[in-house]
Amino acid sequence: MTVTDTSSPRNGVDVSTLFATIDAVRSQPALAKFQFRSDHTWVSGTHNRGVVSGFYGAGQEHTHMQAFELEADHPTVLVGNDRAPTPAEHLLYALGACLMSGLGNIAAARGIDLDEVTATVEGDIDLLGILGLDDGVRNGYSQIRVVFHVKGDAQADQLARLVEQARARSAVYDVITNGTAVTVDVATA
Amino acid sequence: MTVTDTSSPRNGVDVSTLFATIDAVRSQPALAKFQFRSDHTWVSGTHNRGVVSGFYGAGQEHTHMQAFELEADHPTVLVGNDRAPTPAEHLLYALGACLMSGLGNIAAARGIDLDEVTATVEGDIDLLGILGLDDGVRNGYSQIRVVFHVKGDAQADQLARLVEQARARSAVYDVITNGTAVTVDVATA
Repeated sequence: MTVTDTSSPRNGVDVSTLFATIDAVRSQPALAKFQFRSDHTWVSGTHNRGVVSGFYGAGQEHTHMQAFELEADHPTVLVGNDRAPTPAEHLLYALGACLMSGLGNIAAARGIDLDEVTATVEGDIDLLGILGLDDGVRNGYSQIRVVFHVKGDAQADQLARLVEQARARSAVYDVITNGTAVTVDVATA
Repeated sequence: MTVTDTSSPRNGVDVSTLFATIDAVRSQPALAKFQFRSDHTWVSGTHNRGVVSGFYGAGQEHTHMQAFELEADHPTVLVGNDRAPTPAEHLLYALGACLMSGLGNIAAARGIDLDEVTATVEGDIDLLGILGLDDGVRNGYSQIRVVFHVKGDAQADQLARLVEQARARSAVYDVITNGTAVTVDVATA
């Protein structure tokens, strides 16, 4: 890491606070335990809504500055009403967003000013799985590809290493590539 | 599956079109090949935006009825500006939404009228991984829990089986529990 002036925000990141936060967690590792949540309500057919509002972390409950609403539906070609992205598109968005947020922090920490960063995510999926037409076909994506374009005040290889480090420290990339145990229960009350 | 009247929409699902779609794909499996996409733009710090607009499927390109915009940020406790859900929360939302959309279709196909369906998703994550403070801690969620509440015109065990079938045919559940290969590249042009 380049020794750099951390006294002012870079790329919108308050770098001194970022480093202070990491130091605080280093000295008190229990602060790193977080729990994120989403609440879902069925609307009609494949259309449903969600709210993201509270989470636990750094030793206490938190409420987001506003309750964020999200929405999903299937497109008409899949017999939905196309009122919102499909859940499978939300998954791709989560991946691209996680890599992008990480890259913003990492660039600031390395003293690299970013000019413009874009990315495209695409996922291939054969719906023979979901539709129950071929047990040999999985339900989910067979492959996902992410391509970044990064412009900033550094050499191309330094900019490329920002993407590599974002990948290496991405929560969503880890879950999607390595898998996470999920329990699905039905409340009887 | 119960033999049922498919002549009118149930739970907002056009069941006859749903079955006709499945039949069409059965006779022409190449129609099942889809590609979903998201486009991402960095805004500032951990704040970034995405657009979901076009996708490929059923043998042709499609455009959603509108370009759907999504947004992500980190909360202030993680040195962001809390302008939107975190990417890790978007991931939970994608999971709950996928199960919920599937449940809507499955209930209609089984002739069960739904009254109210809600779900909560929560994920445990230890940020010692992301922060680079403990190589023994993974970056992503260690565990995710989903709990459904389902009210409808069927016995409790029939309602519970809707959730089980939604899980068994969920694209996002499959990706999160089994993992999917992801490539992350940097365009040089």
